[in-house]
Amino acid sequence: MDLAAHMKKLAQQARAASRQLAALSGDQKNLCLQAMATALEQSVPELLAENEKDLEFGRSEGLSNAMLDRLQLNESRIQSMARGLREVVALLDPVGRLLEERVRPNGLRLQKVSVPIGVIVIIYESRPNVTADAASLCFKSGNAVILRGGKEAMHSNKLIAELMVGAAQNALPHFPIHAIQVVPTTDREAIRELLCLTDLVDLCMPRGGEGLIRAVVECSKVPVIKHYKGVCHVYVDGEADLDMASSVVLNAKTQRPAVCNAAETLLVDASIANTFLPLVAQLLASKHVELRADPKAFEILGNGQSGTSIPALKLRAASEQDYFTEYNDSILNVRVVDGVEQAIEHIAHYGSSHSESIITRNESAAGTFMQRVDSAAVYWNASTRFTDGGEFGMGAEIGISTDKVGARGPMGLEELTSYKWLGFGNGQIRS
Amino acid sequence: MDLAAHMKKLAQQARAASRQLAALSGDQKNLCLQAMATALEQSVPELLAENEKDLEFGRSEGLSNAMLDRLQLNESRIQSMARGLREVVALLDPVGRLLEERVRPNGLRLQKVSVPIGVIVIIYESRPNVTADAASLCFKSGNAVILRGGKEAMHSNKLIAELMVGAAQNALPHFPIHAIQVVPTTDREAIRELLCLTDLVDLCMPRGGEGLIRAVVECSKVPVIKHYKGVCHVYVDGEADLDMASSVVLNAKTQRPAVCNAAETLLVDASIANTFLPLVAQLLASKHVELRADPKAFEILGNGQSGTSIPALKLRAASEQDYFTEYNDSILNVRVVDGVEQAIEHIAHYGSSHSESIITRNESAAGTFMQRVDSAAVYWNASTRFTDGGEFGMGAEIGISTDKVGARGPMGLEELTSYKWLGFGNGQIRS
Repeated sequence: MDLAAHMKKLAQQARAASRQLAALSGDQKNLCLQAMATALEQSVPELLAENEKDLEFGRSEGLSNAMLDRLQLNESRIQSMARGLREVVALLDPVGRLLEERVRPNGLRLQKVSVPIGVIVIIYESRPNVTADAASLCFKSGNAVILRGGKEAMHSNKLIAELMVGAAQNALPHFPIHAIQVVPTTDREAIRELLCLTDLVDLCMPRGGEGLIRAVVECSKVPVIKHYKGVCHVYVDGEADLDMASSVVLNAKTQRPAVCNAAETLLVDASIANTFLPLVAQLLASKHVELRADPKAFEILGNGQSGTSIPALKLRAASEQDYFTEYNDSILNVRVVDGVEQAIEHIAHYGSSHSESIITRNESAAGTFMQRVDSAAVYWNASTRFTDGGEFGMGAEIGISTDKVGARGPMGLEELTSYKWLGFGNGQIRS
Repeated sequence: MDLAAHMKKLAQQARAASRQLAALSGDQKNLCLQAMATALEQSVPELLAENEKDLEFGRSEGLSNAMLDRLQLNESRIQSMARGLREVVALLDPVGRLLEERVRPNGLRLQKVSVPIGVIVIIYESRPNVTADAASLCFKSGNAVILRGGKEAMHSNKLIAELMVGAAQNALPHFPIHAIQVVPTTDREAIRELLCLTDLVDLCMPRGGEGLIRAVVECSKVPVIKHYKGVCHVYVDGEADLDMASSVVLNAKTQRPAVCNAAETLLVDASIANTFLPLVAQLLASKHVELRADPKAFEILGNGQSGTSIPALKLRAASEQDYFTEYNDSILNVRVVDGVEQAIEHIAHYGSSHSESIITRNESAAGTFMQRVDSAAVYWNASTRFTDGGEFGMGAEIGISTDKVGARGPMGLEELTSYKWLGFGNGQIRS
């Protein structure tokens, strides 16, 4: 069978499975998830053996130690995967929720009810635990999933999916075995073939670097939900509580610099820049954060044209490109702006529509910022780091969207559903 | 300027306008819509003159009389466009609705609030009134719109948009003039260029024949919401009230055969086929509906291998392809099935996920049908013709979606919005 035919078969199997999944009850799905968790826990030696094949391949490909670490499974990581599945059991079934109800003048009763999306393709990079996470969230929301992980993790991913499907089938004899499928080839063309099948695939969610995501958007003919990158901003207004502002900036940048909701740029109102910048710079320097400053901030922090009066501060001039950059690292752009309007303009131009925060006591400035900043999450006096399924109370998260069609912001189980309209009549016809 | 640069400029202008539109109040938008309606009414001679250019072009291109009729404006059609705009005034502002609110254990208050989608491209065929309809709905929902109508209607479309923008600008001096733009070229490449601009265009809605829509999906890199076609089904169950069933079938097929929510296929349970088919066939024959029957239905209706005992009934054998076809005409497929399960299978295989109806007194059969049929709207004892923004109480409709990501079913103003999350804190940081 050629690749196109192979991918079509995979998608047809997923479509058929999705119809059966949509009819499973919450209890049936939970029974399967429990069995899947147990199966992973009971298969540590097998998982480690398959994972070792991946690690060997990774070493032969010259992967960095950091990459090899992300790829590696061990007993505690396997237990953590199983724990993840049990956490999904505890979440409410997102399917069948009554979202709206109305009775029309002719007596027709309309209900808007949540349903699974259908068939979802998930494309991701090296960590094998994403396989279990993504599969469990798609399954609980009644969706069939086609998983395409990194080629380095192929052996681990395949066995994780096999164990999950096998366990579910033991627990529930009519479990549709094509509910969870791994693309069994590392051929890059496979993705393109899959994402042409508009009648069989309902959604694609790529997770990874901006390059991967742009390549997926470029070739996909099915809807894609994603965020390209997280260039998040904290704007410290002229009427900010400066202690609060320092604490939020420090948290947003340093609590976990490598994640998408970490701040990349600090915008400071000119009226407080002289006071606030040295204060926050000192704190950031103590956390080894490098600052890339616009001319005004550079002047304030640099004590003139060169050098700085703050011990251990790494300071350099920001380039235009820096403002567009997601560092995933301990680096922060700093720019002095003239009030909330200029802050909003900066964010509109350089931002990624992910998460931004204003620190101020001024309700009117906060209102302007929250209304006019067009990002998935906008905070007033809080860290950008809260844009997260767990922090939003969604339980688990399959990704974060900066899109405007479909889910926006953190995506939990509810965000993996669509809806349909049910009309209850007693013979109504249209006149 | 080359075409790509031209389209990019159009989209950049739309993006800038969309930011301003998002900040307009409901009252400001209504003021503009009122002024737009008046401007159309007061420009009848100018509109007729531009429309005459289009008609002349259409005649020179050899358009059919039906096509020329769709293209033609007259005083009553212009008044009806103006009335449409005033109806949009009366609808609630869909922006700024509080969709959800939650307070997290750390005190962070999260609000999910509706916002405009941003920049929408609408692609449609000949009728110039779509220009006013689509522009007014996008505007009221705070979206900038780029309109690409049929090339036959270019003069009419341009003037309609110009009049609307001019009137709004008179009414509201800071109205963003690029809120409503018409693609000023008939070059087909223009669409492809526009739909590559993933950072500037948020959504494309094509309206028209399946060929047009497939071509748009094929070339678009921005999200597309659409329905390819409406192959709608009525399933008459073994426990149906046969009078009700006849009345619904007749309505679903004949009340307006050329629309997407009209029925194309009648499925009849074998247990009542002998009684019901002759009954409904007689009624359909009186409305000049041609029936395309499967072998069982053919046998019942045809009185054997050929001919029929029902006066004036046009009857022929259905082909496999017929079951996939949206006739937009007085033709109905008829198939005898073994119960609700087979009806569901038929719909899953041949249907277009638009609108289906089951006629039955049996609650359990209805429940199975409504749960398992994966269409945008599923009815119990009602006509498929109700899938419509007006009938759903949305006021006006910009289209109908059979997609699973974004809006599904009739799309009114609310369906033209996205949402964002607002987080209200007092210094919360993540630990």
